[in-house]
Amino acid sequence: MPTDIEIARSTPLKTITDIAASIDIPSDVLNPYGRYIAKLDRSFIAQLMDRPRGKLILVTAISPTAAGEGKTTTVIGLGDALKRVGCKTMLALREPSLGPCFGQKGGATGGGRSQVAPMDAINLHFTGDFHAISAAHNLLAAMVDNHVYWGNELNIDTRRINWGRVVDMNDRALRDIVVGLGGPSNGYSHSSRYDITVASEIMAIFCLAKDFDDLQERLARIVVAETTDRQPVTAGDLKAVGAMAALLADAMQPNLVQTLEGTPALVHGGPFANIAHGCNSVIATETALRLADYVVTEAGFGADLGAEKFLDIKCRQTGLSPDACVVVATLRALKMHGGVAKADLAHEDIEALKRGFANLERHVKNMQSFGLPVVVALNHFVTDTEAEFAVVRDLCRDRLGVEAIFSSHWSDGGAGAEKLARQVIEAIASSAVNLKLTYSDDQPLTEKIRSVAQKIYGAADIAVEASAAATLAKLEKEGWGNLPVCIAKTQYSFSTDKNLMGAPSGHIIPIREIRLSAGAGFVVALCGDIMTMPGLPRKPAAEAISVTRDGLVDGLF
Amino acid sequence: MPTDIEIARSTPLKTITDIAASIDIPSDVLNPYGRYIAKLDRSFIAQLMDRPRGKLILVTAISPTAAGEGKTTTVIGLGDALKRVGCKTMLALREPSLGPCFGQKGGATGGGRSQVAPMDAINLHFTGDFHAISAAHNLLAAMVDNHVYWGNELNIDTRRINWGRVVDMNDRALRDIVVGLGGPSNGYSHSSRYDITVASEIMAIFCLAKDFDDLQERLARIVVAETTDRQPVTAGDLKAVGAMAALLADAMQPNLVQTLEGTPALVHGGPFANIAHGCNSVIATETALRLADYVVTEAGFGADLGAEKFLDIKCRQTGLSPDACVVVATLRALKMHGGVAKADLAHEDIEALKRGFANLERHVKNMQSFGLPVVVALNHFVTDTEAEFAVVRDLCRDRLGVEAIFSSHWSDGGAGAEKLARQVIEAIASSAVNLKLTYSDDQPLTEKIRSVAQKIYGAADIAVEASAAATLAKLEKEGWGNLPVCIAKTQYSFSTDKNLMGAPSGHIIPIREIRLSAGAGFVVALCGDIMTMPGLPRKPAAEAISVTRDGLVDGLF
Repeated sequence: MPTDIEIARSTPLKTITDIAASIDIPSDVLNPYGRYIAKLDRSFIAQLMDRPRGKLILVTAISPTAAGEGKTTTVIGLGDALKRVGCKTMLALREPSLGPCFGQKGGATGGGRSQVAPMDAINLHFTGDFHAISAAHNLLAAMVDNHVYWGNELNIDTRRINWGRVVDMNDRALRDIVVGLGGPSNGYSHSSRYDITVASEIMAIFCLAKDFDDLQERLARIVVAETTDRQPVTAGDLKAVGAMAALLADAMQPNLVQTLEGTPALVHGGPFANIAHGCNSVIATETALRLADYVVTEAGFGADLGAEKFLDIKCRQTGLSPDACVVVATLRALKMHGGVAKADLAHEDIEALKRGFANLERHVKNMQSFGLPVVVALNHFVTDTEAEFAVVRDLCRDRLGVEAIFSSHWSDGGAGAEKLARQVIEAIASSAVNLKLTYSDDQPLTEKIRSVAQKIYGAADIAVEASAAATLAKLEKEGWGNLPVCIAKTQYSFSTDKNLMGAPSGHIIPIREIRLSAGAGFVVALCGDIMTMPGLPRKPAAEAISVTRDGLVDGLF
Repeated sequence: MPTDIEIARSTPLKTITDIAASIDIPSDVLNPYGRYIAKLDRSFIAQLMDRPRGKLILVTAISPTAAGEGKTTTVIGLGDALKRVGCKTMLALREPSLGPCFGQKGGATGGGRSQVAPMDAINLHFTGDFHAISAAHNLLAAMVDNHVYWGNELNIDTRRINWGRVVDMNDRALRDIVVGLGGPSNGYSHSSRYDITVASEIMAIFCLAKDFDDLQERLARIVVAETTDRQPVTAGDLKAVGAMAALLADAMQPNLVQTLEGTPALVHGGPFANIAHGCNSVIATETALRLADYVVTEAGFGADLGAEKFLDIKCRQTGLSPDACVVVATLRALKMHGGVAKADLAHEDIEALKRGFANLERHVKNMQSFGLPVVVALNHFVTDTEAEFAVVRDLCRDRLGVEAIFSSHWSDGGAGAEKLARQVIEAIASSAVNLKLTYSDDQPLTEKIRSVAQKIYGAADIAVEASAAATLAKLEKEGWGNLPVCIAKTQYSFSTDKNLMGAPSGHIIPIREIRLSAGAGFVVALCGDIMTMPGLPRKPAAEAISVTRDGLVDGLF
């Protein structure tokens, strides 16, 4: 099998005008970025919103291994397959973050024969959306310090500036810094931090805003600091909103690209799925739903994190609802959840598979508890055996009443996911979804956190640390109690111990810290140290990246 | 007179395809960014280089006031005028920096009826070039700290990491920071700094590289730190070059836009004119020279800084040479150089004008000393009187043998600069330039600095501080003695005292610090504290910026 980039380069792309025409987007609403990428005009999108929505398919996954189980390739393969079987289809995907391309994780444009293209452009600067978000974030940071410097009329407590800075780069040395050193002309010294851009609250706002007005209202609500008498100071107070909006104006328009099989895809936004909600922009999802009959989208990490937030945050705020849910698993990962060591995953192990099935089972049941019809997609690996597949298929049918489908889109493209596509179409046709969220708006914040921990994570209870409890009480008092919660915990386990595989139960979820994301519109509950600025590995991918004499970028993966 | 943005919006633009066609650029070598901006394909540019060069007109200025004397508007107005009188004309300009748009200085797309467009896009993210430069710079910074973190094989002395980080934002709190706090997993703490992106050595490299190979060779030479035994550590040693080049690959292609009168302009790159050489990319200048018969370009600050570096650095490294030089002045600024207070500049004052003429005289003589024919452009203000103009015109003729032309391009567009255009055409036609640089490659670095100080600044001598002298000796010993020098001093005076107006002589230029820019290919001599990270003013322009309901950005200037 050739490498991802070899496959991508050997596949001729259609012009973006042709791709747009295939989904009835007129060429005069395209803002091209090169020949294969375009942003869609704002006025075109506004006028689409009167149309009825197509069907929305949410792709999520079991608790992943470090490599991930292939959600993005499944979205792409399933989309290509839906198109092959005659459906008017569109994808809505997250934009890759630049930093991880130079580290260990690599890019995020799919792989094998299930890719969106052009992969080098999308993985590197793309249309500059993340740079725009970084600039807006850092402008606000500069305006906070500048306000203090010029007399501090708002009475900001420099010990309580919680708005750090961001950069789309893996740079661990910036996690904990002191700024404003070097004397009076450089301002007041205080400790600060850099997060990676995808962890910016502006990224979450960008992805949750329904339109440009909503964006600006959310930006105005961002709390950047507290005054010396502990009152919140917002971006609105600092008069930063218009300038931030100007930086984000172009970025807010969704980016149209194509899969290697020519399926149109909107790739737009990409917040973290721990401290934020982890899915592409609402604007992209809503636009795709007005243009296509079937829209395939994804949520970050496993279903306990990404899908839960997709439903309890994004759907709650917007009224969106999936019509079906695809849970992606691999036989290898299920064996790992059954206790098999990484080195032994290539061997058939029916008993381990049966034990590890518990992880898939809980995720599927969780999705069913939201009222969603579920299809399990088993992302095919060469070492998978028919006997192993039969075990999972039968357990899915017997215990969950769902179908598990082998999908070979990675090696075969859309043709390898046609069976999955037909199963999804049938699941949608045979059930009308009435979405049931995990908690209601009027439950207290602590109760919301407990609901997720018990209903989704299978925990016995939560243990809220004193300082976190104090923050929760303060937020309730200040009127933020009606917001949904966004729980930041490890993606590798239903518990907060990343080594606890399968489907642990009876565990306690510690709640260590509470942060308000007033602009995004949720309260973040951190269960432990959550990394918001990755580091580079010992041998960064950057060392192997180069540019050919023809100007092509090599070494991206 | 309407505002800049009102003029810009009321002027219908041609599509970028039409602009390209007007200068014989085929549409299939355009990489569009929206409808009015395009990058030019690398292969098209490579193939142009066999063609002969057109005529190059360098626009520079007297020692400026804080507002600047209108170099950029003169480049644009002169270009439009050359086109009006029938010349095949193109402009080569610097890209605006994002940070100052939110501060005091505003954007950099000209003004009045002499603007490049679309002004909001160019002033904000444009095609992302500066974001790409920031990303390449910050990737290298992350790779330095990451190398130390993972065992420090190269033996980097963390006290001697001189590669900071950059952001395209005015943020004084980042001038002096400590990074790597918070414990072992965040690396080794050390002091660091942020510069604004235009001060990055990568910006200088970007603008001096002849082609992509040259870019990569220069990137490899960047010295980021010293080892514990004081040996240089380079970006090449860190294996960072390929990844940095990948980030810069698209950015290296020049950006085609248009003036409000439809003259094609390449707007590309924009380094500082103190610690770097202050002019647009070599690639843009060389490309324009192959496409047009007349190319108008600019150098930053006054002629002592920008033009001197354009000639002694950019022309030296590339073999380029201007065919004529336009020195921009205003009667107001000349009166200021003659000792008039800012509040009184609107009144006629012949005696002050005669005194202040000394500043213009020295700049013109300096340009003549390079062997360039000079035309003085007097940027017209409503308060200027005919009597004042006659004084300057006569002094220019009598003492310098050059013509001074009133130019009203700001209020009248190209029509207001036709007389200037004809004078420039005549100056070019009547003299063949044999460029004489200020110093030769083989002079010692100290002698080069002295040459510039004495010949260009009119100084009696330089006074090199002990630590600077030690660095100069070290650089000579390490083999960098053949590089040109880049002197960083205030732009407001020929001396290092910004309040010393006119044409001071007999002064001493203190040399306080020496920095090697090995990739850019020059040695920087700092005469004092040079600000490489601006701050925001008390009332930042950001507070007045907003986005209209139609998605237009208001408040940029």
